[in-house]
Amino acid sequence: MSDTKRLTGIFTPNIVPLDGSGEINEPELRRYVDWLIERGVHGLYPNGSTGEFTRFTAEERRRIVEIMVDQAAGRVPTLAGAAEANVRETIKACEHYHAIGVRAVAIVSPFYYQLSAAGVYAYFREIADNSPIDVTLYNIPMFASPIDVPTVKRLAEECPRVIGIKDSSGDLPNMMRMIAAVRRVRPEFSFLTGWDAALMPMLLIGCDGGTNATSGIVPEITRKLYDLTIAGRLDEARDLQYRLLTLFDSMIYSAEFPEGFRAALRLRGIDAGIGRQPKSESQKLELNSLSRDLQCLLAAEGFTEEPVGGCPVGQSLDPEHVARIVQGVVGELKRRGMA
Amino acid sequence: MSDTKRLTGIFTPNIVPLDGSGEINEPELRRYVDWLIERGVHGLYPNGSTGEFTRFTAEERRRIVEIMVDQAAGRVPTLAGAAEANVRETIKACEHYHAIGVRAVAIVSPFYYQLSAAGVYAYFREIADNSPIDVTLYNIPMFASPIDVPTVKRLAEECPRVIGIKDSSGDLPNMMRMIAAVRRVRPEFSFLTGWDAALMPMLLIGCDGGTNATSGIVPEITRKLYDLTIAGRLDEARDLQYRLLTLFDSMIYSAEFPEGFRAALRLRGIDAGIGRQPKSESQKLELNSLSRDLQCLLAAEGFTEEPVGGCPVGQSLDPEHVARIVQGVVGELKRRGMA
Amino acid sequence: MSDTKRLTGIFTPNIVPLDGSGEINEPELRRYVDWLIERGVHGLYPNGSTGEFTRFTAEERRRIVEIMVDQAAGRVPTLAGAAEANVRETIKACEHYHAIGVRAVAIVSPFYYQLSAAGVYAYFREIADNSPIDVTLYNIPMFASPIDVPTVKRLAEECPRVIGIKDSSGDLPNMMRMIAAVRRVRPEFSFLTGWDAALMPMLLIGCDGGTNATSGIVPEITRKLYDLTIAGRLDEARDLQYRLLTLFDSMIYSAEFPEGFRAALRLRGIDAGIGRQPKSESQKLELNSLSRDLQCLLAAEGFTEEPVGGCPVGQSLDPEHVARIVQGVVGELKRRGMA
Amino acid sequence: MSDTKRLTGIFTPNIVPLDGSGEINEPELRRYVDWLIERGVHGLYPNGSTGEFTRFTAEERRRIVEIMVDQAAGRVPTLAGAAEANVRETIKACEHYHAIGVRAVAIVSPFYYQLSAAGVYAYFREIADNSPIDVTLYNIPMFASPIDVPTVKRLAEECPRVIGIKDSSGDLPNMMRMIAAVRRVRPEFSFLTGWDAALMPMLLIGCDGGTNATSGIVPEITRKLYDLTIAGRLDEARDLQYRLLTLFDSMIYSAEFPEGFRAALRLRGIDAGIGRQPKSESQKLELNSLSRDLQCLLAAEGFTEEPVGGCPVGQSLDPEHVARIVQGVVGELKRRGMA
Repeated sequence: MSDTKRLTGIFTPNIVPLDGSGEINEPELRRYVDWLIERGVHGLYPNGSTGEFTRFTAEERRRIVEIMVDQAAGRVPTLAGAAEANVRETIKACEHYHAIGVRAVAIVSPFYYQLSAAGVYAYFREIADNSPIDVTLYNIPMFASPIDVPTVKRLAEECPRVIGIKDSSGDLPNMMRMIAAVRRVRPEFSFLTGWDAALMPMLLIGCDGGTNATSGIVPEITRKLYDLTIAGRLDEARDLQYRLLTLFDSMIYSAEFPEGFRAALRLRGIDAGIGRQPKSESQKLELNSLSRDLQCLLAAEGFTEEPVGGCPVGQSLDPEHVARIVQGVVGELKRRGMA
Repeated sequence: MSDTKRLTGIFTPNIVPLDGSGEINEPELRRYVDWLIERGVHGLYPNGSTGEFTRFTAEERRRIVEIMVDQAAGRVPTLAGAAEANVRETIKACEHYHAIGVRAVAIVSPFYYQLSAAGVYAYFREIADNSPIDVTLYNIPMFASPIDVPTVKRLAEECPRVIGIKDSSGDLPNMMRMIAAVRRVRPEFSFLTGWDAALMPMLLIGCDGGTNATSGIVPEITRKLYDLTIAGRLDEARDLQYRLLTLFDSMIYSAEFPEGFRAALRLRGIDAGIGRQPKSESQKLELNSLSRDLQCLLAAEGFTEEPVGGCPVGQSLDPEHVARIVQGVVGELKRRGMA
Repeated sequence: MSDTKRLTGIFTPNIVPLDGSGEINEPELRRYVDWLIERGVHGLYPNGSTGEFTRFTAEERRRIVEIMVDQAAGRVPTLAGAAEANVRETIKACEHYHAIGVRAVAIVSPFYYQLSAAGVYAYFREIADNSPIDVTLYNIPMFASPIDVPTVKRLAEECPRVIGIKDSSGDLPNMMRMIAAVRRVRPEFSFLTGWDAALMPMLLIGCDGGTNATSGIVPEITRKLYDLTIAGRLDEARDLQYRLLTLFDSMIYSAEFPEGFRAALRLRGIDAGIGRQPKSESQKLELNSLSRDLQCLLAAEGFTEEPVGGCPVGQSLDPEHVARIVQGVVGELKRRGMA
Repeated sequence: MSDTKRLTGIFTPNIVPLDGSGEINEPELRRYVDWLIERGVHGLYPNGSTGEFTRFTAEERRRIVEIMVDQAAGRVPTLAGAAEANVRETIKACEHYHAIGVRAVAIVSPFYYQLSAAGVYAYFREIADNSPIDVTLYNIPMFASPIDVPTVKRLAEECPRVIGIKDSSGDLPNMMRMIAAVRRVRPEFSFLTGWDAALMPMLLIGCDGGTNATSGIVPEITRKLYDLTIAGRLDEARDLQYRLLTLFDSMIYSAEFPEGFRAALRLRGIDAGIGRQPKSESQKLELNSLSRDLQCLLAAEGFTEEPVGGCPVGQSLDPEHVARIVQGVVGELKRRGMA
């Protein structure tokens, strides 16, 4: 029933551009879709965590997918986030996305309530049994109930509709455990990593690709890292992975997620607008400072001009500065058991 | 602008009865409201975590509050959960609830994304500045971004619309820190505990009441515990608190929350229906076993008949059995940094 | 075999005064023992966490207990921390402490390695079966493997030598669970709380006393709080508990534990010396600043003079300042899953 | 001052064989040293976590290193764990190990007390300033205070005596952050991973080697994995890494650490004896069952005979069985914030 070709390559979880009233900026979203496809991403991934799916209404989430599928016009496949308030609403969304030509849906594990492995299994099983479209599991223990290896294995064995997993934990040995548990019984099952910081090593231990937020900002780099790694050009790939790590850390840890990505997207010429989550004055100041740092990083990669006043010579951003920020935010997340 | 009388007493976060199609069972919900008020709860609290607000659509959440406010008909005040997808939608819900006579809204801290203290502040500040109705902060670090003491203090100082906090952490020293930080500047600010396991000591160190899920199942006990504690009859209160702890632990830790409460509600004669979260076969079996245990506990308190076959003599439920369950589930939660 | 009288009251986990060479300052330690007994503590508790047992050699730990038992000369009982590198060494320490007249030993749960409940049980069982002296379990999940309720129950049932538990988690419902599980089968079993921030409510739900670090600094207050609570003078007790909370938070969260207590002890006139854990320049500056804050707090309670330059009028220490510090450190601990 | 050649290759953190009285079994330890060197390990690493350094006395720790250095007789270098009760005792150990020809010491971050980054820095700085021998930092956040990237960078810049870090977190992006922060300023600084589950990808992103417990059991495999990876034979290396992962998971998660390694060592013909940590009856049964599983795994690799009754055909151990065990134990660790 399922398309037997694995999902491979880089799928972009995109920011949704907003207009001055905070509404979806359809023309800019369409322009952004073209921009991404022209720069080589292998697929689109609306309504992911980067896409702030929880901050849109059910109607808006559908509208976002409709616009993007229409604009992509078959040039690349779309993997659409389809989690709604409950299983029935989620299945309705699956049906709709199937009808409009989406390649597969991605369903995040239940969140807010922290479910046991049995509950996570029951949830995905119910959806898989009723969905007319291929389903990708979405494991992001930072934000939602974890999907453990035995659960992935059981769903892979019992549900032909479940065709892959998108894992944003960044836990490399656990990815290996999932691959070891599933690949023998479901050779066409896809493993995608959502953790850009480990893209190269994840591909080297057997992943098929990634859903990487950096590909929405610097698709040229993320795509090239994928190509170099697949081609076995490891020295070049390693160098690029280190540079992508600095960019990723700067965007993901320096502001309330995904505001760092939104700020960077603006520097690439996409009018991302102002996010829906209110910001305090201190947060606005930090975001301005981050924006300048990001401009230096992007300028060093040739994607934009240096900011007025220039950038530090020799290196675009003090690694110690980034390290301190990472440490602080990883601490914040760990404090809540999220990392 | 705000009603200066503190929110006091026991507010019930209610399960929403569902019919055979999984829809809101309005007649049973109305009957449940009467049942609760007749048994002495001081207020109603729809769309809380026990009320599974995330598993209903935005329209359903409004409908639930409308039914309950209408049925209460002014006999007790309603504190309505009003968190929606984003600040704008939440403010619209506040306006609606204000218009239909809700006493105050309760807004859970942002969830899924884990926000910093600055982000949590900005979120509540924006809502408080635009809400026509009193706002209660809802801190539940098990499920949502924590609201820390400096943030509570700052919101209490800056926002007259913010009139209290409902805290479900069960962290008693932290409740004292909040009270110490706020009571001097806002003497009418309410502190409600959502952690039934510590209701008596929370009241003794200065809380004004509770939003307690047990009050939806055994309102007679939760209300009596409140009355005895307020009256300073500590020996009787302590005994009741220990008995409530066993009931609470059995319901909260023995099944995927809030299914233990739903099972117990059925034993009290309210047709709660089947929850929207799918269950695996193993979960269904466990729920049957729990239901029997709960029946013994409720029978021991005189609220129902013993199950066919009877209950263990001398005590209604093996405390060690409960202890092992608690340990297991607290472990599951801690594993995710939630407890 | 065991003395059937419960351990009750306030046992002081003492800082060990060090001389200019970093060695145990015996004369000052003897003077400190007298000072504590004169101020009403019910017992002594050397080699606890406050006593930095891990930073002394095995020989030094014995010497500390010998000095203190000798100086106490039977005026108050001693509860001696006796955990050594392994079970055999620990049992040897138990034998020695028994020989010199210690009342009971306290054995911290295994640390560094994080043991399962089965491993924790086996460890305490082996010690209890071979110790000639009563044993108190020491649960401090912040630093060591947790001792869960079923394990406490099993050890209480199987081991007459195990006569109590000292719990420093501050988790009030869990203390109730332990009491509910054990008191029926072992009515003389003692429950002591090591979490000063909740001393009053812990006593109100059934604890027998505490091993409280504040009693080493302000024994007058900790003892009075115990007396008022036991006497049922709740309004006075509550007020004192709030004041003790501020002192406790300031000492425990404002510097690397137990340096805040050491700094405060110096202000009470005991020459505590310099701790063995090295400090960075920034830590030394922070400790100076803390020392000034503590002096204001202690002056407000009448225990010392205000520092040169005076203290803030109306209140000795800004509660928001303390709140921010608490938040920061609790964050640090939670980051590591310790709180 | 320091030997400028990086530490590279596989260093073995060894189990210490014990005799029937629980004492160090010197002849067997000497035989084990020879066995390891003959099988190709690049260095020895006594008094690591696998070596249960906390369960030996200070005298025993020295004796272990003395025996091993004497037996190695210069064939391979020794990296000796040298952490003692406090900084002064640790420096004395450093002096002793320097005198007897140890290549470098490894100092685990302070444990029991959870220190801040400033405290961790001060601790290592004091040791590095006074040690006559090269120092390797040992980061194992599962058991001890974490050493964060800015702290590693600062120590690398300020302390020529600090020549490397051994990191057992398994966090690959964090290893990249450490390498990015340090390698430019200290090109000869060594990065060793203690997490066997990610050895191949860690080497591919720039690590110099590992201190891997599997190398104490199957040195042939760990060494071959190192060689294949360094040689760029990635397909063979990947296959071996997956097989090592199964072995590693089985040994590390199936029993109280390091008992799984001790059981496996026995199967390789080294008489490891009985560990010092007592075991409950249930733990002994589990260990027997694990031992049989391990025998099948080792037989599949050709290192031993199959157990009586044979092994499952086709595969030596059910991956799902291992997966469930891993899940359970990782849960236990996460519950305590350790993983």
